[in-house]
Amino acid sequence: MNNLERLRSENPLIVCYTNDVVKNFTANGLLSLGASPAMSEAPEEAEEFYKVASALVINIGTLTHDNEEGIMKIGRIANEQGTPIVFDPVAVGASSYRKQFCKRFLEQIEVSVIKGNASELLTLVDSQTTMKGTDSDSSLDAVEIARKAHKNLETAIVITGKEDVVAQNNQIVKLANGSPLLAKITGAGCLLGGVVASFLFRNTRPEIEQLIEAVSVYNIAAELAENKNHVHGPGSFLPELLDQMYQIDETTFEKYVHKVEV
Amino acid sequence: MNNLERLRSENPLIVCYTNDVVKNFTANGLLSLGASPAMSEAPEEAEEFYKVASALVINIGTLTHDNEEGIMKIGRIANEQGTPIVFDPVAVGASSYRKQFCKRFLEQIEVSVIKGNASELLTLVDSQTTMKGTDSDSSLDAVEIARKAHKNLETAIVITGKEDVVAQNNQIVKLANGSPLLAKITGAGCLLGGVVASFLFRNTRPEIEQLIEAVSVYNIAAELAENKNHVHGPGSFLPELLDQMYQIDETTFEKYVHKVEV
Amino acid sequence: MNNLERLRSENPLIVCYTNDVVKNFTANGLLSLGASPAMSEAPEEAEEFYKVASALVINIGTLTHDNEEGIMKIGRIANEQGTPIVFDPVAVGASSYRKQFCKRFLEQIEVSVIKGNASELLTLVDSQTTMKGTDSDSSLDAVEIARKAHKNLETAIVITGKEDVVAQNNQIVKLANGSPLLAKITGAGCLLGGVVASFLFRNTRPEIEQLIEAVSVYNIAAELAENKNHVHGPGSFLPELLDQMYQIDETTFEKYVHKVEV
Repeated sequence: MNNLERLRSENPLIVCYTNDVVKNFTANGLLSLGASPAMSEAPEEAEEFYKVASALVINIGTLTHDNEEGIMKIGRIANEQGTPIVFDPVAVGASSYRKQFCKRFLEQIEVSVIKGNASELLTLVDSQTTMKGTDSDSSLDAVEIARKAHKNLETAIVITGKEDVVAQNNQIVKLANGSPLLAKITGAGCLLGGVVASFLFRNTRPEIEQLIEAVSVYNIAAELAENKNHVHGPGSFLPELLDQMYQIDETTFEKYVHKVEV
Repeated sequence: MNNLERLRSENPLIVCYTNDVVKNFTANGLLSLGASPAMSEAPEEAEEFYKVASALVINIGTLTHDNEEGIMKIGRIANEQGTPIVFDPVAVGASSYRKQFCKRFLEQIEVSVIKGNASELLTLVDSQTTMKGTDSDSSLDAVEIARKAHKNLETAIVITGKEDVVAQNNQIVKLANGSPLLAKITGAGCLLGGVVASFLFRNTRPEIEQLIEAVSVYNIAAELAENKNHVHGPGSFLPELLDQMYQIDETTFEKYVHKVEV
Repeated sequence: MNNLERLRSENPLIVCYTNDVVKNFTANGLLSLGASPAMSEAPEEAEEFYKVASALVINIGTLTHDNEEGIMKIGRIANEQGTPIVFDPVAVGASSYRKQFCKRFLEQIEVSVIKGNASELLTLVDSQTTMKGTDSDSSLDAVEIARKAHKNLETAIVITGKEDVVAQNNQIVKLANGSPLLAKITGAGCLLGGVVASFLFRNTRPEIEQLIEAVSVYNIAAELAENKNHVHGPGSFLPELLDQMYQIDETTFEKYVHKVEV
């Protein structure tokens, strides 16, 4: 059985510690795809949830002083339980507060995948390498950032952008599906974090194929949604994206996937 | 005037202490139906709100240590004000943390309706009966669970599932409307809690007919939405569900309602 | 370049401290319009965000004891940074708790625009004038309330209702676009706060024309959405509203705007 079929048959439990803005959309997206989302945030119940969860998503979109320690705690519990973590360092470059938190988190917690855009990943890599001096990495492209992040942070990397880049097990693949309307709805990137988590099946060191399928299934659904006649903007795109995530099958994925190893 | 017409003419204020994932959808659902939702959570203003509110919904979907005491406090204030409470013990079986909280809540606070799925209600009944030894209740069906919960917890019970079961005043009724797509959007059960609250009209001991109409109006709206030609999945189902809740009238309810006393 | 074109070309960063119910919808609305929303709430990063932000929205929809001090703090930081604040005193009349908080906030923080319905603005004006004795202002109409609020609170005023009223620089304008369906979706007023903020361009004392265009662009989008054939209720109205906000241009605004100076 391939990954998408496995997802639909297992309905993996995906626990999401995510930001307030996107909880509803993330849950609806994962339900449409076939996963079983739980937006549990209490460290008090983390152990019981992570024992049976297929993966944990940690997204710092609405990080505040009050939830910092909770996030560290659930990260530690997931590590103890062997539950893979997908980490989404939302807007890490926008404040030194976020930068410091992400640095601390990644030093203490082992994550399986980091998903972000090029500038977020660049910030993480830079903060890791600060002690070696100042790199002028701003000229690097997404492939170079992915290569460096994969090496330095020792985890799978998904970089989103006009083209997406996936790095794992010393392989790097560029993916070219998607829709510009994804940038016009809030939480499109956050939902992708949950989609990636849905393809991990409790594997803390996923194959690159699992990541490619996750990113591409989502982006192809977006592509098909954008091309519908009745879609005229972000408002009509959003429900159609959910419908396409509900309907997409392995054949459609194979037909449309656009990947290039680099 | 029947209940749905009364709801539309009174626009009852429904205060919702509900989880972060579903606040928006709950509010939109109640507005579509004709109620007036307020997502107020501050105990500081609870008294003023509950004095004029038609009912209070308490949903523990995103229970955390930080909001436990707030929930107890607003429960007490609602009891003092005579405001009926609809209690939704989301995922109570998923962690002992939730189980203990619900036990404490139900011991100290009087609720008018408990709404949940069969396994949630079973967990509540079991935790109530633990001291009498271990019941092997897992084989019980929804009707039996409803009967037992109604007796032991001394409150109206709404059990959701493929068929729904309502128990009140020693009557039990099975309801058979609904749509499988309800399970594919997040918060469909949480919204039902709000819909039930909208039919209480400050009645702490509602008639079973009020509960039947609440559950059935919602489920018939879902049925009609699912059958629309343009509905192809959860994404297109969700807005159509709201439209149907906006449009449904007493005649449609009477025409489609499917209930059996047991 | 006029205001709407400027908005689309600059994609102004709008930081929103808003209530849990409407974060997602507010973000999607602002993205559809062409602004760049950030739902950052941590005072720790406020300075860095407000330095580059075009405006800050503060909405007290889900005010609790725990977030009071955070709101005061970010207000002060925005004032220090010269970032204009749009203040939305949601349901300020519904509890003395909210009333006291708003009074304290407006005494200590300088805001650029207050947006609310007539009863909210009336409550603010009354609480400001309490010491002069009890005014029987309940008979005042929206224009009178706007006039008084503009004078007493020394800030631009946007009053929403069947007709909207804008007061700034001692001018008052009545606006007559909009749709009754706006009252049937949650957060329609909250999103308008964000739309107003998107037209400020870091101007702490905006021209009345900026406010008129903000309110009218939003209301015309709602009007056009309501008139679509496939819109039958709040569910289908909501995505169409986002599409219309995405598509509306200056010509459409000029063609449909309905304003009267009073």
